[in-house]
Amino acid sequence: MPSGGCRRREARGILRLCRPIVPTNRVELRSTDSPFGFAQGKLRRLSPHSRLEHLLKTFTTIDEMRSASRAARRAGKRLGFVPTMGALHEGHLSLVRAAKASCELVASSIFVNPTQFGPNEDLAKYPRSFERDRELLEREGVELLFAPSVEEMYPTAADRACPELAEGSVRPTPVTWVTVEELSGKLDGRSRPDHFRGVTTVVAKLFHIVEPDAAFFGQKDAAQVAIIRRMVRDLNLPVEIVVCPIVREADGLAMSSRNAYLDSEQRKQALVLRRSLMRVQELVDAGERDAGRLAAAGREAIAGKRSVRLDYFEIVNPDTLDPVEVVGGTVLVAVAAFVGTTRLIDNLLLGRGSG
Amino acid sequence: MPSGGCRRREARGILRLCRPIVPTNRVELRSTDSPFGFAQGKLRRLSPHSRLEHLLKTFTTIDEMRSASRAARRAGKRLGFVPTMGALHEGHLSLVRAAKASCELVASSIFVNPTQFGPNEDLAKYPRSFERDRELLEREGVELLFAPSVEEMYPTAADRACPELAEGSVRPTPVTWVTVEELSGKLDGRSRPDHFRGVTTVVAKLFHIVEPDAAFFGQKDAAQVAIIRRMVRDLNLPVEIVVCPIVREADGLAMSSRNAYLDSEQRKQALVLRRSLMRVQELVDAGERDAGRLAAAGREAIAGKRSVRLDYFEIVNPDTLDPVEVVGGTVLVAVAAFVGTTRLIDNLLLGRGSG
Repeated sequence: MPSGGCRRREARGILRLCRPIVPTNRVELRSTDSPFGFAQGKLRRLSPHSRLEHLLKTFTTIDEMRSASRAARRAGKRLGFVPTMGALHEGHLSLVRAAKASCELVASSIFVNPTQFGPNEDLAKYPRSFERDRELLEREGVELLFAPSVEEMYPTAADRACPELAEGSVRPTPVTWVTVEELSGKLDGRSRPDHFRGVTTVVAKLFHIVEPDAAFFGQKDAAQVAIIRRMVRDLNLPVEIVVCPIVREADGLAMSSRNAYLDSEQRKQALVLRRSLMRVQELVDAGERDAGRLAAAGREAIAGKRSVRLDYFEIVNPDTLDPVEVVGGTVLVAVAAFVGTTRLIDNLLLGRGSG
Repeated sequence: MPSGGCRRREARGILRLCRPIVPTNRVELRSTDSPFGFAQGKLRRLSPHSRLEHLLKTFTTIDEMRSASRAARRAGKRLGFVPTMGALHEGHLSLVRAAKASCELVASSIFVNPTQFGPNEDLAKYPRSFERDRELLEREGVELLFAPSVEEMYPTAADRACPELAEGSVRPTPVTWVTVEELSGKLDGRSRPDHFRGVTTVVAKLFHIVEPDAAFFGQKDAAQVAIIRRMVRDLNLPVEIVVCPIVREADGLAMSSRNAYLDSEQRKQALVLRRSLMRVQELVDAGERDAGRLAAAGREAIAGKRSVRLDYFEIVNPDTLDPVEVVGGTVLVAVAAFVGTTRLIDNLLLGRGSG
């Protein structure tokens, strides 16, 4: 991870002054077949800021996206990439800023990937706010946006005559999978079977389509980070993986698109995830090194909350995700819990000055 | 597949005149750590033809190979790639010629991939003839050769402290696999469990390392062709797959590195594979369209031979590898049989004017 990779570049403040916020209602969409309700890369603006039109080009097809990123590479530009599922928050934007700081051109993607959702998970209700997301990315100076349909990414589902294929309702079953076998059943992979093979498969696809020099991921998804790093290393993918720190709300809750599911009482209860990690941090600061006792203290902190059900609280090697017995070097303290029906995760990297 | 992709380019005869055969004993190898007994890209020639030295650069590390192919791409050259396991024959060379005919620069690889051999298969005895292969490739005008060690391709085996790691003796167990699930258990995949996930994983790795515009495979491995095409399509790998016809000995035996295992009696028996396919062709020419009856006739042809044991004889869709009931459109007639202990394969594409 390049040092200072997540530092905003100093010119950003000035750039932001040059890019006034354009409210959604000032953007007129052309009628279109796209599931997102926008035409391929062709938005007509009512805003007077027409000189900004070139800033964000949106592509819904693989061929268009590849052509655009290849043109950038031919021009010798370092291309950064921030893959997302949309419903953007400051955590995503911190990745974009890190990409802007170290790359000459930045691409992002918005794709709610059905193959990483389990049959009883929240695919259909996952928050979608495409137009708002697009504007946020444009304001941050992202140049290329890839926003494909499910059919574009998984045409095999169409092959198999799935007439019910529609955004948010169908989990296609691809024929080809990329699987990081030993890691994919650990942490979140234990409670979300097949989740990580969905993630690694779609990330490999996106890397092949966008062909970035560097891709940016958030430390919040610590197991995902370990698994993607391992995939890149094992398959010799020519992409540098940059991991950026967790971004939190003022009260310490890790930012997540799923926080939108919480009602006000659950929102308060959710703070216990962060508090359980802080409890471990305190004990480590006080000299405790036994991972078993530390994890027990973290679990105890969660157990005290009504309507919060612990999924896991583990202290592991951040690369292999294997449990450690003693805290030394860099270890990952990771927690997942259901607050009501919403599954939230958080973590702390001990020994790396981050978290 | 580009039409005429396998046609030799007309200038070849002239080129060959310019490149006299340099016998192996006129090439002095520098002492080296390489498992192949050659130094990284640095051969000192005793031959007077020193002006030819630039023709073939050999790389044993991933970083060197990637740098060389990236330099070619920056120069705007179309890069063709012919992955091999060495022990080259005219079949391999036909792929090289197809690559030379349609690409400005050609890379090849020689890597006996341990992860595609089963525990009771011929990994240790698989024929290895690196120096001869290198010279053949040089004579055909290949510019870049990637010849990594097992440790270079699968460092995870070293991670896991495998002191016995040595060429030909160890099958590493990678953490990350690329699997074409529905196809990998069909035809050869049924009798060679895990063979195809080894193939797809190493081909994905090689594609990520070499980053070719086009890669060339032989129709002899018909199931492999179907599976690699599917992988490329599903994972959006930016590589064009070009498939070249089977190259045969004068008597019709499909060329294979494994033909070297056959003694003279087995060599004669082996012709029955081709004859079983010809029998099906005759019946189709005579009007038979029932796949069951055609396959039965093919199996019968094999059954007549002592010391030849049929593995499979199937008539399938060449893309899905699913059996067909009626011969119409393009179908793949595929046979695999053991001649002594040597497993050979052959096939015929009906309805595509090839085979």
